[in-house]
Amino acid sequence: MTEEGLKRLDQALNPSAVAIIGATAESDRVGYAVVESLIMGGFSGEILPIHPRHQEILGKQVYASLDKTPVTPDLAIVALNEHASIEAVKECGRFDVKAAVCVAAGYKEVGKRGAELERRLSEAANSANVLLIGPNTLGVMNAEARLNATFWPISLEPKGHVSLISQSGGVGQIIGFEMLSEGIPFNKWIGVGNRASMDFDDFLQYLLSDPSTDVIVAFIEGTEKARSFVDVAMEGAQQKPIIVMKAGKEDASRKFALTHTGSMAGSYKMYNDIFEQFGLITVHSIPEMISAAKALSLAPVPTGNRVGILTPTAGPSIILSDLLLEQGCQIPSFNQETMLDMSKQFSGVPVVLKNPLDASAAGYDARSYVSLAASIARDPNVDVLVAISIDHKNRTFPAQELVELTRDLGKPIVVYYICAPTDGAQSRAVCQEGGIPFYTSAEQAAWGTASLIRRRRAMNSWGGA
Amino acid sequence: MTEEGLKRLDQALNPSAVAIIGATAESDRVGYAVVESLIMGGFSGEILPIHPRHQEILGKQVYASLDKTPVTPDLAIVALNEHASIEAVKECGRFDVKAAVCVAAGYKEVGKRGAELERRLSEAANSANVLLIGPNTLGVMNAEARLNATFWPISLEPKGHVSLISQSGGVGQIIGFEMLSEGIPFNKWIGVGNRASMDFDDFLQYLLSDPSTDVIVAFIEGTEKARSFVDVAMEGAQQKPIIVMKAGKEDASRKFALTHTGSMAGSYKMYNDIFEQFGLITVHSIPEMISAAKALSLAPVPTGNRVGILTPTAGPSIILSDLLLEQGCQIPSFNQETMLDMSKQFSGVPVVLKNPLDASAAGYDARSYVSLAASIARDPNVDVLVAISIDHKNRTFPAQELVELTRDLGKPIVVYYICAPTDGAQSRAVCQEGGIPFYTSAEQAAWGTASLIRRRRAMNSWGGA
Repeated sequence: MTEEGLKRLDQALNPSAVAIIGATAESDRVGYAVVESLIMGGFSGEILPIHPRHQEILGKQVYASLDKTPVTPDLAIVALNEHASIEAVKECGRFDVKAAVCVAAGYKEVGKRGAELERRLSEAANSANVLLIGPNTLGVMNAEARLNATFWPISLEPKGHVSLISQSGGVGQIIGFEMLSEGIPFNKWIGVGNRASMDFDDFLQYLLSDPSTDVIVAFIEGTEKARSFVDVAMEGAQQKPIIVMKAGKEDASRKFALTHTGSMAGSYKMYNDIFEQFGLITVHSIPEMISAAKALSLAPVPTGNRVGILTPTAGPSIILSDLLLEQGCQIPSFNQETMLDMSKQFSGVPVVLKNPLDASAAGYDARSYVSLAASIARDPNVDVLVAISIDHKNRTFPAQELVELTRDLGKPIVVYYICAPTDGAQSRAVCQEGGIPFYTSAEQAAWGTASLIRRRRAMNSWGGA
Repeated sequence: MTEEGLKRLDQALNPSAVAIIGATAESDRVGYAVVESLIMGGFSGEILPIHPRHQEILGKQVYASLDKTPVTPDLAIVALNEHASIEAVKECGRFDVKAAVCVAAGYKEVGKRGAELERRLSEAANSANVLLIGPNTLGVMNAEARLNATFWPISLEPKGHVSLISQSGGVGQIIGFEMLSEGIPFNKWIGVGNRASMDFDDFLQYLLSDPSTDVIVAFIEGTEKARSFVDVAMEGAQQKPIIVMKAGKEDASRKFALTHTGSMAGSYKMYNDIFEQFGLITVHSIPEMISAAKALSLAPVPTGNRVGILTPTAGPSIILSDLLLEQGCQIPSFNQETMLDMSKQFSGVPVVLKNPLDASAAGYDARSYVSLAASIARDPNVDVLVAISIDHKNRTFPAQELVELTRDLGKPIVVYYICAPTDGAQSRAVCQEGGIPFYTSAEQAAWGTASLIRRRRAMNSWGGA
């Protein structure tokens, strides 16, 4: 994309005024949900619903047509059907609206007739000089500007540092919910839809240049412009971690993708091999994607792949070790000095000093836990410490002390905290604000840890520090 | 285990009075947490803390020794060190206490000296005719009797129909938390620990005979009595689903298991092959275990492996299809009649009629969703319906209608509901009470669906109906 295009997109994502063409007062319609989303998102600019007859929708004054609005919107959300959307885009051009999000389906994904409509839509946007997002998209969001330009009415507070590009709105919603659930809210949320005009490479280029985005995650079904995506991504990965999930492992499900956003899906293995080669972090599920995004957006990158594990009980560390080893991590022996240091701390209690270290014999108090954690983290054989804990009403988890430890040493610490779904919130907040990714399952902890190590490997391949 | 042994264990899990040998008033000690656990669990029988000097612990009167208690306890929890526990077990025998849970570590898992201590502990229990659970165990729980005989103070309400046996207390806690989180609370919770006397086969035999247990889950690091476990399990699986996870995929982590509960871990593949051959459901993670337990405890077993999918948006169904196909499910075409029926419901909207069926073109209202769900579920090509939905503030999820559908047809329905962690609780409650397993991730939905199909396969191999 040109500098001009990037600027235009930036303006669309940071608008002063947004028009909703096809706004309606019927609460089960998309044209209603779009207005509601803008309001719920917390947008502080002008919200301008367009409808020939309505007076007011959700307390917002309605305008009969685009030329009747008091200000020129920077962005229009078109919530009309696949035919009317084409006219609406032309109208955007006539009244100087620079960008449009088209939500309608019924284009390339439904076959030949739809493809022809899509060609006309795209042509209309080109001639009218309108930046076209979609069609067949849930829309876009920018938490930085509190812009929720979708038909998914959610609040955009708080905002985080991970941005996402998703070919599927529904999968984008899964990612959004999962990020919320994991305490790493998104910064920008882009539904690319059918990519009639703006494609993955354009949005990726934008997010790479976006100072509020630290980590990028992408869900891809397939694209005909894979080459130019890879060109942008291979350079981009050296600036920021890019985490990619490609759908369609199985032949049969690749066929489904074709009738979804009209994309040729391409071989799962081929995509992943190429992505890996260029230093992208490929993932195979949404939970893996979010676990990686969490680690890469919070923790420092380790110098190597050797993981030290501290646990209050052995079983969970066996499950975790299995997963870490599968992912190419090493679980080294501690060095002599560390062993000596530990055996002092256990003062004569019978215990096998090994990695993973079972701390149960030292009692369950926070002080001895931190002290053992420090011994492991300081061991020169250890590049990452994974600290396991189990929620217990009579025990305190030393979150703050671990935060100080990771800061002092500059080594990543990953927490695997076993708890009921409603517990651990306080400890998580302290950890994650302090640069420690906090997970509640062994799988997440292993994916997070492995993603840090994979990032190191990629950085080494570029000769980076 | 003999009939006599089973009866004795049943009595230990349904006691009228429980003694805590080594009870203490110091809140960071195990001997305190045990008393607290009994109270928090909601036990309505006598709680009898034993300590030579204390007067009262957590409002409960303390007795100086076992012979000073007003009634003879049916169960003693021994919260002493590895040496004193041996004496305590002898004392249990002297005062006619029939069963003891020994929580102390420092036995076989720490090496030769510990193994010798364990031999003496086991011998003491045998000569004293005391049923010994542990040592090195978190304990046991029976939600049916509201007995929390562990040092993990949690409430035992509500109770469910899935019971678990875990070699690791910590992993048992993960399983317990995960079940709670998934809305399928456990019925009995057994930490086997070092299995000095009572082993997996004994507990399995008990749970198979237990009328409140519908599904059994087991986490195994390894056992020297694998043969007798398999003997019990292969017969037992024909009565109730048995779901097994074996730890130690990687050689290195198998070594860790040896120093945990002192078990020879054995080959991961060998265990799983044998388990599968005898109709057990083998799983590779705790989330998979709980997803399977949920499906098998709630839904009817389908007649085949063909899955019909209804979705409000295509992307998530592509991810789900990938996972289902990987697990050996089929995603068949709908038959002609179903297609005709559907095309009427879409009344001219351009849509590709295929499985998975993207319902977005029919709008998002609950009535058309249910009607499409019914078309799919009634299709003779479909054995299981997976109904995907996305939480949206303006849409209603027709949970009750789906419950009626699964009941009418006798076909399993599985729900994959995409939502924020705090949402969907109401819909989940309706579904799960009505026999529909309700999941919030594609992975869980796929594991749950696959477990039903695997159960059918096993039943077919026994010639069952």
